[in-house]
Amino acid sequence: MTLPAAKDKTLFTPGPLTTSLAVKQAMLHDAGSWHFEFNEIVRQVREKLLAAAGVSREQGFEAILLQGSGTFGVEAVLASVLPPQGKLLVLANGAYGERIAQMAAHLRIAATVLRSPENQLPDLETLRRTLASDAALTHVAVVHCETTTGLLNPITEIGQIVKQSGRIHIVDAMSSFGAIPIDFAAAGIDFLVSSANKCLEGVPGFSFVIGRRALLLAAEGHARSLSLDLLGQLKGFEKNGQFRYTPPTHSILAFAEALREFEMEGGVAGRAARYRANHAALVEGMKRLGFQVYLDPKVQSYIITSFYYPDDPKFTFAEFYRRLSDKGMLIYPGKISQVDCFRIGTIGRIFDSDIRQLLAAVRDTIDEMGIKL
Amino acid sequence: MTLPAAKDKTLFTPGPLTTSLAVKQAMLHDAGSWHFEFNEIVRQVREKLLAAAGVSREQGFEAILLQGSGTFGVEAVLASVLPPQGKLLVLANGAYGERIAQMAAHLRIAATVLRSPENQLPDLETLRRTLASDAALTHVAVVHCETTTGLLNPITEIGQIVKQSGRIHIVDAMSSFGAIPIDFAAAGIDFLVSSANKCLEGVPGFSFVIGRRALLLAAEGHARSLSLDLLGQLKGFEKNGQFRYTPPTHSILAFAEALREFEMEGGVAGRAARYRANHAALVEGMKRLGFQVYLDPKVQSYIITSFYYPDDPKFTFAEFYRRLSDKGMLIYPGKISQVDCFRIGTIGRIFDSDIRQLLAAVRDTIDEMGIKL
Repeated sequence: MTLPAAKDKTLFTPGPLTTSLAVKQAMLHDAGSWHFEFNEIVRQVREKLLAAAGVSREQGFEAILLQGSGTFGVEAVLASVLPPQGKLLVLANGAYGERIAQMAAHLRIAATVLRSPENQLPDLETLRRTLASDAALTHVAVVHCETTTGLLNPITEIGQIVKQSGRIHIVDAMSSFGAIPIDFAAAGIDFLVSSANKCLEGVPGFSFVIGRRALLLAAEGHARSLSLDLLGQLKGFEKNGQFRYTPPTHSILAFAEALREFEMEGGVAGRAARYRANHAALVEGMKRLGFQVYLDPKVQSYIITSFYYPDDPKFTFAEFYRRLSDKGMLIYPGKISQVDCFRIGTIGRIFDSDIRQLLAAVRDTIDEMGIKL
Repeated sequence: MTLPAAKDKTLFTPGPLTTSLAVKQAMLHDAGSWHFEFNEIVRQVREKLLAAAGVSREQGFEAILLQGSGTFGVEAVLASVLPPQGKLLVLANGAYGERIAQMAAHLRIAATVLRSPENQLPDLETLRRTLASDAALTHVAVVHCETTTGLLNPITEIGQIVKQSGRIHIVDAMSSFGAIPIDFAAAGIDFLVSSANKCLEGVPGFSFVIGRRALLLAAEGHARSLSLDLLGQLKGFEKNGQFRYTPPTHSILAFAEALREFEMEGGVAGRAARYRANHAALVEGMKRLGFQVYLDPKVQSYIITSFYYPDDPKFTFAEFYRRLSDKGMLIYPGKISQVDCFRIGTIGRIFDSDIRQLLAAVRDTIDEMGIKL
């Protein structure tokens, strides 16, 4: 019941990611969740998340940690802040936008979904028109980096329209926060959600929400779930510095170390530079091997990249994946509804040398499989 | 931003608990959440949980892991299995029973709460009468070991009444599962919830539900939350062996090791023997020092024990706690509404020698504080 590999495989995925040894070693401790030493770490983590977001408590923002995966964090925002008569507009051009629509359905929250193709940006004119024509709409939710494809949605332009129309702006920045600069003020962001095991390079166990305190306080009584009650969670931290319910203590110790490494690397700018270089090297190398990128470079993020399957009947993703796994590297399957793609992530504790190793492994693998590109 | 102590303090709490070094070292790996090696570990963990519960798939049970703390697991059962017109009867004699009532309120599930004092068992005749007189009631929820005090509720007697009346029986066995024998058949348990970081001695990060597959399938469409949708979670495991959303990979690797240690110790019987001895040594030693146990021994579990504050104005819990912390031991505050108590847990990777050290530290601390007992 243990991982058989002598050495961990490198994760070229959207997360959980490869993390540093120091991050993992920070978990070799059992912290008391009621103890002041641990609470002080939680307090510092919350402060550093605000700093990473470029916002402050004085500007009315709070950072709230929540147990569970990123999905739990996004659903907690919806479950907590939409009033009983609220209505959500979801911009969807991928599986994660669709997931937000699914959440609204489960929570019995009225919602309209504005869909655009998975390789295209949402139409801003339609957004403007929809907000103008449906006065019931109170909140707009959008995914920043659509991990489905790797597409980057224009949250600043979207946010300006949302704010001009007086609506509340919710951004799922799961796979972008910490590595793609986000201007909260310019994008009029009211609530942003991300998770410990993405670009901040912690291990999974919790998500976090950076959101407006006043809007949370105004949502008193709206929460449709006790566990997912964000205002309740904030009040818990403010009452005694503690999580209301058992925190993932080890994940939080790891995250504190991950934030230290994040600062050492130069914060968002430093991380963006490394990931951008990873992505550029990957795309350049894969193209040289004959692979084609699914997205137009104009909408492509440097977080994760979708590649078309080679047009050769000898290619199967299962075999391609397994052969790369045997070489110590894990890529990711596609998630696009209409096109056969696989995905390669360029985030986590991976560097140029890892990209070079992956490219060599891909080259060897297509040779072994006898695939023509 | 790291824990200052050179050596971790021993945790005499209800969890997160002190775990073995091997359990923590199992987290020194980054597993791919999509990868077959990791999925195989998840599969084995689910099998072993059924075995630890003494039930099988053939008997219609499934083990479902869910991200988040134990509270998320309990709320997931309520949110997923109660039909829209369902009504919950909650037996409450402590904070965790009250928390279930809070969940029902948040989920907008109709509920009746049968309260009994925090130091007393629920009245079974009242339970029987309530079930007979209110035909709207569909489900009954009870906490096995009420961590508020350490009281052990009689889930077998309760379950027999619940089953005789044809209701569904939900047991919050958070702090008892794995260390107190539970007979699923005798207690007519339909859903039992516990968590990784309790008596199975893993680290926090997820809860698990052992429940009846047929009842979950019959609850299709009831889920009031996407993240907390237990049937959706089960379908995810059955579709491809994966969690629907990012799993706490490191916590699960730690749990696989924790289950190995659990088996090595002789399963429930072995763990029960160690915890029972821990508790007996603690109570005997504390009484010798002059402390008084809050609960009658007839209702007291060997999981956690509430002790009255000494009747001396020089005693403050804050100072008592801090002085024990300085000696490397963390106890737990009281949670009882009407009586001043503190609590000492006897679960986790702690042994007779740890109890002896704690008793010596308590003795020294009351001497230092000049407290008369």
